Amino acid sequence: MTRENAVENDPVVTNGVNVTALSETIDAVRQNTDIAKFQFRASNQWLGGDNNRTTIEDFDGACETHQHANGPFVAYNAEPPVLLGEGTAPSPVEYVLHALAGCLTTTMVYHAAARGIEIGEVNSELEGDLDLRGFLGLSDKVRKGFHTVRVRMRVRSDADPQTLASLAKFSPVYDIVSNSLPVEVNVETY
Amino acid sequence: MTRENAVENDPVVTNGVNVTALSETIDAVRQNTDIAKFQFRASNQWLGGDNNRTTIEDFDGACETHQHANGPFVAYNAEPPVLLGEGTAPSPVEYVLHALAGCLTTTMVYHAAARGIEIGEVNSELEGDLDLRGFLGLSDKVRKGFHTVRVRMRVRSDADPQTLASLAKFSPVYDIVSNSLPVEVNVETY
Repeated sequence: MTRENAVENDPVVTNGVNVTALSETIDAVRQNTDIAKFQFRASNQWLGGDNNRTTIEDFDGACETHQHANGPFVAYNAEPPVLLGEGTAPSPVEYVLHALAGCLTTTMVYHAAARGIEIGEVNSELEGDLDLRGFLGLSDKVRKGFHTVRVRMRVRSDADPQTLASLAKFSPVYDIVSNSLPVEVNVETY
Repeated sequence: MTRENAVENDPVVTNGVNVTALSETIDAVRQNTDIAKFQFRASNQWLGGDNNRTTIEDFDGACETHQHANGPFVAYNAEPPVLLGEGTAPSPVEYVLHALAGCLTTTMVYHAAARGIEIGEVNSELEGDLDLRGFLGLSDKVRKGFHTVRVRMRVRSDADPQTLASLAKFSPVYDIVSNSLPVEVNVETY
């Protein structure tokens, strides 16, 4: 996408992804695994009732701290009236579906680009089933979050669906949602 | 918060949550568990490279389909330049932190309200550690998503921190992120 020096060869760009830069990143990580260490961050403030606001400003990666040039990004959570909220924003569980959809898509597109697979369009539909008895503490046998998530991706590509699905499953958010993960929650009061 | 009939008693509202309505919801679910069945949905469209857009319009719950009155809600995913993107929006893994922060906060506030625990302020800071070698497919021993998430919540309340942490952990997104979950990914091509 970018060309810093007209003497250099044009980078290979597939699916809107700079494959030349992707290959360079992979080589750099192979030589120094510290480059692969990332830390993402968010801060959140309760605004009363069902409303809260997240701010996303910076992250660490490739051995330095990066400010989001177009940030800080702000996002709101709320609950719909049937869940006793004011319905001013999506609910947190809906944002999980948003994150999952985006990560599966970007991951498929990047990994396809690295393999020279062209992708023309990607559209996905996600469903997450939840039994409120878990959240309400009415049954120990019912989990609190989604008990099933279904993702249907429709992709314009000559590649076979199984290959594309396997590429999508390199997704970090797919890993986070489908597998267990240690989450430390520390509460301080004042 | 709302009073449909001046003859009725005022609802009890704690932490901005209508506790009277919350108790009525719990009673209704106890009598008919179908009321507890929810399905949340999202659709996503790839916009090229690292950019994609999610639309959140409706969901099922309490035996009916609900349109988001203030929706459809739209949210964008992108990647920062160091991850070969244009940096126009948060990345999907950052949205996971957003969802987790919001859900822990709302859950703590709702469950505290149900127990008569007053909460004045909640601020949280989240960190998610990720090793890019998993996403890049450079090591089978490195997971693709976060390997650790830390949440620090600072709460203005007279309740003890352990109680508040245990209330927060009724959070659906905490369950989704910390525990494993079946995610079906189906890809169709055209």
